[in-house]
Amino acid sequence: MERLGEKYQSVEGFGWAARDSSGHLSPFVFSRRETGEEEVRVKVLYCGVCHSDLHCLKNEWHSSIYPLVPGHEIVGEVSEIGRKVSKFNIGDKIGVGCIVDSCRTCESCREDQENYCTKAVATYNGVHYDGTVNYGGYSDHIVVDERYAVKIPHTLPLASAAPLLCAGISMYSPMKYFGLAGPGKHIGIVGLGGLGHIGVRFAKAFGSKVTVVSSTAGKSKDALENFGADGFLVSTDEDQMQAAMGTMDGIIDTVSVSHSILPLVGLLKPNGKLILLGATDKPFDLHAFSLILGRKSIAGSAIGGIKETQEMINFAAEHGIKAEIETISMEYVNTAMDRLAKGDVRYRFVIDIANTLPATRP
Amino acid sequence: MERLGEKYQSVEGFGWAARDSSGHLSPFVFSRRETGEEEVRVKVLYCGVCHSDLHCLKNEWHSSIYPLVPGHEIVGEVSEIGRKVSKFNIGDKIGVGCIVDSCRTCESCREDQENYCTKAVATYNGVHYDGTVNYGGYSDHIVVDERYAVKIPHTLPLASAAPLLCAGISMYSPMKYFGLAGPGKHIGIVGLGGLGHIGVRFAKAFGSKVTVVSSTAGKSKDALENFGADGFLVSTDEDQMQAAMGTMDGIIDTVSVSHSILPLVGLLKPNGKLILLGATDKPFDLHAFSLILGRKSIAGSAIGGIKETQEMINFAAEHGIKAEIETISMEYVNTAMDRLAKGDVRYRFVIDIANTLPATRP
Repeated sequence: MERLGEKYQSVEGFGWAARDSSGHLSPFVFSRRETGEEEVRVKVLYCGVCHSDLHCLKNEWHSSIYPLVPGHEIVGEVSEIGRKVSKFNIGDKIGVGCIVDSCRTCESCREDQENYCTKAVATYNGVHYDGTVNYGGYSDHIVVDERYAVKIPHTLPLASAAPLLCAGISMYSPMKYFGLAGPGKHIGIVGLGGLGHIGVRFAKAFGSKVTVVSSTAGKSKDALENFGADGFLVSTDEDQMQAAMGTMDGIIDTVSVSHSILPLVGLLKPNGKLILLGATDKPFDLHAFSLILGRKSIAGSAIGGIKETQEMINFAAEHGIKAEIETISMEYVNTAMDRLAKGDVRYRFVIDIANTLPATRP
Repeated sequence: MERLGEKYQSVEGFGWAARDSSGHLSPFVFSRRETGEEEVRVKVLYCGVCHSDLHCLKNEWHSSIYPLVPGHEIVGEVSEIGRKVSKFNIGDKIGVGCIVDSCRTCESCREDQENYCTKAVATYNGVHYDGTVNYGGYSDHIVVDERYAVKIPHTLPLASAAPLLCAGISMYSPMKYFGLAGPGKHIGIVGLGGLGHIGVRFAKAFGSKVTVVSSTAGKSKDALENFGADGFLVSTDEDQMQAAMGTMDGIIDTVSVSHSILPLVGLLKPNGKLILLGATDKPFDLHAFSLILGRKSIAGSAIGGIKETQEMINFAAEHGIKAEIETISMEYVNTAMDRLAKGDVRYRFVIDIANTLPATRP
């Protein structure tokens, strides 16, 4: 125990955790490790509420470790740096996304795609290489290796930058990787939620034509007027869908509840690509024929690498892209989760950690 | 009728046709149009027997028009040219594949991907723009617009070149398009039949490492010794499959009967691509998760464009690539179809049209 104590001298941490699959969050005192030589300690300022947080709180992916402190859309301020840290200084505003470490040696890591490293360590509900379970950003501070954090340019508003760390990079990365970013491209974005609305803004900044595909006709105004989409298709309207067949170069599908894939494949031009971001619980059904006839692809994509996340943040700063958020207090988080479960959010909750967490200490 | 006669002065054609979905082939006399200004008349020398021929003969795709003269792996000799023909001369050895026309104006056509033109005209069982039904290469001659034929270099043996026109281009095109052709790539080829065995030879010529995945353990020797594959996986052997997980950059799946897709996705590295060529009759089931975790893709591919077909033929000539064939007589064709239905062919039947068709004239 003494040796362990020496190696992992700890600092008290405070956040909100769920204790079981009810998912109910409440104040929780725990330990964070000391800041290592190549690590930074970050005072959390804001943390976005991602739909994965809800899945994990309720153990819907059957891998939750309780107590569970969620949060992987973290924006904060560096409060301490290890002696070998070179990327950051105390006082820097930085961001931490979905992963806080990876093996650093595999092909994915060597190619700056740590997000696809099979040993990547999740920011919360992930087991760190030292054997401890990670706690996320619904907490007062976090310790992270400098390699897995990004700089937030001072021109980006901090609260609305938080969702870029997961929702933003999830949209940006596939547009870039699959060659969908740029003028002359017609991109479909399925689902206008936390991811989708940021996707519209990125796609427009890339110069693409953007059509939102949603089952909720009422989101049309937001899509067209607030986020700048060029078109809006109600996915349940067969005439609208039929008229749009064969018109899109690529589609990013953000919907995480099971839905039919075939009509989306039909929207694609020859050589078109449908990118799935939502890990739906049920398998989808597809005839090979629908892909063969126009050399179409269906692919998956998961967040992005750290280098690409920095690139995305810089691009967002340059183009004034931010998430549309509802800033909430820590105490509101359980209500927010109930609303999120019903899709009642415009368009991302962000918790004002620094200003509202301390008051909840028991 | 007179006007029709003037416009489409016809020439007698002779081949073998099926009259109904029994698929039984027998001698058939019909008409071919006159050679148009930009067309060539081709004396058919050899015609490969593609598995699609069998599907169409038996109306398994529910679109067969009888009488049906199959054949879209045609090698022949130019016997007549229209006055505006510039690509070919009388006596040239040329090839005709799966399509004989397309709209020539759509994006696919403009990008030399006529195979994805939604108005492409099939070599047989396709309706030509003049309203007539096309008859394929199980016949003495064929008339085709010069744009839709390719030159066969004199160094290619004619009989074993025939399968390149469909099977060959079907394998070559996706390897090139999806970036799977080249040294350092590890390619899986699922199914060692008419397409698969040519695929192994192309992939090896590209410098790739090739592993054949087949349910037939007995094909291992051919795969490794005759076709030059580097590895062989028995798809039903879970240990072998497990050991190969995450090792392939791409997989070309040639199997056209329904089969499980998930284990193949598992064989892919991150960013790997599974290309389906077989239009299986049942849909496949897939969890989005299996694609998301490693940014994997599933795509379809269908033959190739004419320009690419010429490139493929030239590449084959340069690298001595040919199909492994059983040359058969026209009279043997119904027996050949029975054998093909059972997968009993090494590895493609090619009908010696010029030497055996004339004797079957009633």
